[in-house]
Amino acid sequence: MTDTALMTDRYELTMIDAAMRSGTAFRPSAFEVFARRLPGARRYGVVAGTGRFLERLAEFRFGDAELAFLREHEVVSPELLDWLAGYRFAGDIRGYAEGEAYFPGSPILVVEGSFAEAVVLETVALSVLNYDSAVANAATRMARAAKGRPVAEMGSRRASEESAIAAARAAYIAGFRATSNLAAGARWGIPTMGTAAHSFTLLHDSEAEAFQAQIDTLGVGTTLLVDTYDIEQGIRTAIEVAGPKLGGIRLDSGDLDEVAAEARALLDSLGATETRITVTSDLDEYAIAALQASPVDAYGVGTSVVTGSGAPAAGMVYKLVARQGDDGEWVGVGKRSEDKASRPGEKVAVRTLEGGIAVEETVLVTDDPHVLEQAATRGRALQVPLVERGEIQERWLGPAGVELARERHTASIDELPAEAHRLARGEPAIPTVFR
Amino acid sequence: MTDTALMTDRYELTMIDAAMRSGTAFRPSAFEVFARRLPGARRYGVVAGTGRFLERLAEFRFGDAELAFLREHEVVSPELLDWLAGYRFAGDIRGYAEGEAYFPGSPILVVEGSFAEAVVLETVALSVLNYDSAVANAATRMARAAKGRPVAEMGSRRASEESAIAAARAAYIAGFRATSNLAAGARWGIPTMGTAAHSFTLLHDSEAEAFQAQIDTLGVGTTLLVDTYDIEQGIRTAIEVAGPKLGGIRLDSGDLDEVAAEARALLDSLGATETRITVTSDLDEYAIAALQASPVDAYGVGTSVVTGSGAPAAGMVYKLVARQGDDGEWVGVGKRSEDKASRPGEKVAVRTLEGGIAVEETVLVTDDPHVLEQAATRGRALQVPLVERGEIQERWLGPAGVELARERHTASIDELPAEAHRLARGEPAIPTVFR
Repeated sequence: MTDTALMTDRYELTMIDAAMRSGTAFRPSAFEVFARRLPGARRYGVVAGTGRFLERLAEFRFGDAELAFLREHEVVSPELLDWLAGYRFAGDIRGYAEGEAYFPGSPILVVEGSFAEAVVLETVALSVLNYDSAVANAATRMARAAKGRPVAEMGSRRASEESAIAAARAAYIAGFRATSNLAAGARWGIPTMGTAAHSFTLLHDSEAEAFQAQIDTLGVGTTLLVDTYDIEQGIRTAIEVAGPKLGGIRLDSGDLDEVAAEARALLDSLGATETRITVTSDLDEYAIAALQASPVDAYGVGTSVVTGSGAPAAGMVYKLVARQGDDGEWVGVGKRSEDKASRPGEKVAVRTLEGGIAVEETVLVTDDPHVLEQAATRGRALQVPLVERGEIQERWLGPAGVELARERHTASIDELPAEAHRLARGEPAIPTVFR
Repeated sequence: MTDTALMTDRYELTMIDAAMRSGTAFRPSAFEVFARRLPGARRYGVVAGTGRFLERLAEFRFGDAELAFLREHEVVSPELLDWLAGYRFAGDIRGYAEGEAYFPGSPILVVEGSFAEAVVLETVALSVLNYDSAVANAATRMARAAKGRPVAEMGSRRASEESAIAAARAAYIAGFRATSNLAAGARWGIPTMGTAAHSFTLLHDSEAEAFQAQIDTLGVGTTLLVDTYDIEQGIRTAIEVAGPKLGGIRLDSGDLDEVAAEARALLDSLGATETRITVTSDLDEYAIAALQASPVDAYGVGTSVVTGSGAPAAGMVYKLVARQGDDGEWVGVGKRSEDKASRPGEKVAVRTLEGGIAVEETVLVTDDPHVLEQAATRGRALQVPLVERGEIQERWLGPAGVELARERHTASIDELPAEAHRLARGEPAIPTVFR
């Protein structure tokens, strides 16, 4: 069952039901997705998941199975069931382009429609954006710490099976080069990689037989995993079997800094000076940074990237910021509770640049019809149209959307000041200013 | 695309390809899922995801779309494509019943089949078990810390959209009472809950109008969210509108200990002595334990449960532990690398009890044909048949399987010594002994 429309918290439907009764369900409304802070006291965040959210939106329909469930469990009234049966989002959505950097308070997504049609998207929008952005937030730091050496995502087994595919996509957008996950290749066009695990060596009667079988099948350019028994012997066997033109070796255990240096020296002494070294054991952005001076050619990252490296959810929220009253006047609205207050009013955002470097995230409340024109003069506009009168903009979807997001990510982080790339906890790289 | 068969790391297929060439691909083999340690230095773990894994296994087929992708990208040889087209798992799988407690080294799942048919399940098995168990590992502590007060899962928006459904299921197995996620209700029969968010209050011209609409629709037994503006005023308005028979109020901000006490006193003073208090702001097992003396009636937990409360992946691995040689003899195999060694040989496990209390996780290597009989005399057998000659045992599937897992969880943790329920980091509650 692809029950996207039930990827929804029950209270969204009970709210619509009650609002239909009070006559407020169809008040024109605006919801905003934003983050109160950057997780893990990082210096910037990366928006990811937008394309996936739009694909979920395209299939967000209450079909017979979904309606039957809601009817049988008396979740909502018969009137609401009728309305849900015809549900199609017909409003507007604009937001930060996927791959764009964001900061606390950035209006990442603005959903305009009736209260009913917009509130029902709350859970699915946040699920997608919070997970995918958590991965991208971690991946961007790892890719940057690798300083041009390629990083591959191989954490599928440490995330639930659908998250694994989303993680591969988000990591690729944020600068990774490839993934081990075949479904991510099939769905999103992401390059896939991988050769063999320890079980392959253990299956064979000797390490040499395993290596020979791999080379016979994948060619001498393949990467051999050399640490099943003893690394030094494994490398010697690898070169004996493959010759000095072996493509690469992989190291998946031990003190990688030390092990990589020894492996490099041994490979060189065996004439395998072009054989590349990939390391893959429990890496995160800090471990990658610490290996900067080591003779490592490529990294494979698993658990830490798919779990957001200590911040497994990006902490974005979906808040009603404005709605019309019965008099047709727009009213900015926001919670006043002490630790979770929200800022009323629909917003647009520009990144203010000086000499090509970002200096401020400028957020303007759109209570003035000319604010958009004013905004354009202040810097680079950050919101793009995603859905117009219910029509999803195609260019953000599928593999093409992923490539667009990857390009946006590169351009966006190149614009950030140098402090943005410090790994230590700290303040956002630029301030968010509400003007 | 429900491409379960591509929820697979590329190297699994390249290994089969190379093993077909070396003539080892169809050696009878046994893979084992186990965890080297308990994440977060907890006292026990909870197996979750088994039923979901079996449902994924049932649909694990390389169809036209999957084969076309593999062919176009030249991932594997034409011979392997032919084999994949006919792939059906025809082996045996036994394992810990879903909901069972586990410890370091527990042989949670044993997959027996040819190398090829078993290795290809590595990623999907680990993805499901690692995520679902991470959630259950967190949820069991929260449910226990709540000491009988009901706990509901409401973290869908903090997990990716399919993980959210799996999380609701795992939390329910581990003792939660309900979820906000409608899809979890539809797919797995889990009770759903939820009434209204702050946006519902903000949509209306006054808090009183919002409360009135909710009561008109959901009845006076509903739960009103009272902290949109001012909690004291919110509670007064709630009782004015609903009368003293109001079912409940929800508090989602502030110092919950203090706020709950003030709310209880105010409700009592207004005659609403039976009105229940639900709290829902950033709770985890420690916060729940700290609210033990507070007049709280129910908890709602979001981020921390769906992200494993600091341990977002359970750290289980899938290792080849035994395989036949060409002579038909079984050989126990294991990695020897220093930090990731694995213990060779197929295993069975029993929980050794004294006076009904667990004292040891006893793991026996099955190199002796009588070991299973011996095991039965030592304690409670932990592995149950899940798949027999390719046939998935129905009782673990669907909503019925979830209820069975929930019962197993209760029985299993009731058997653990009292130390098991300490929240502080420490050693596993019982030792794992290999005999």
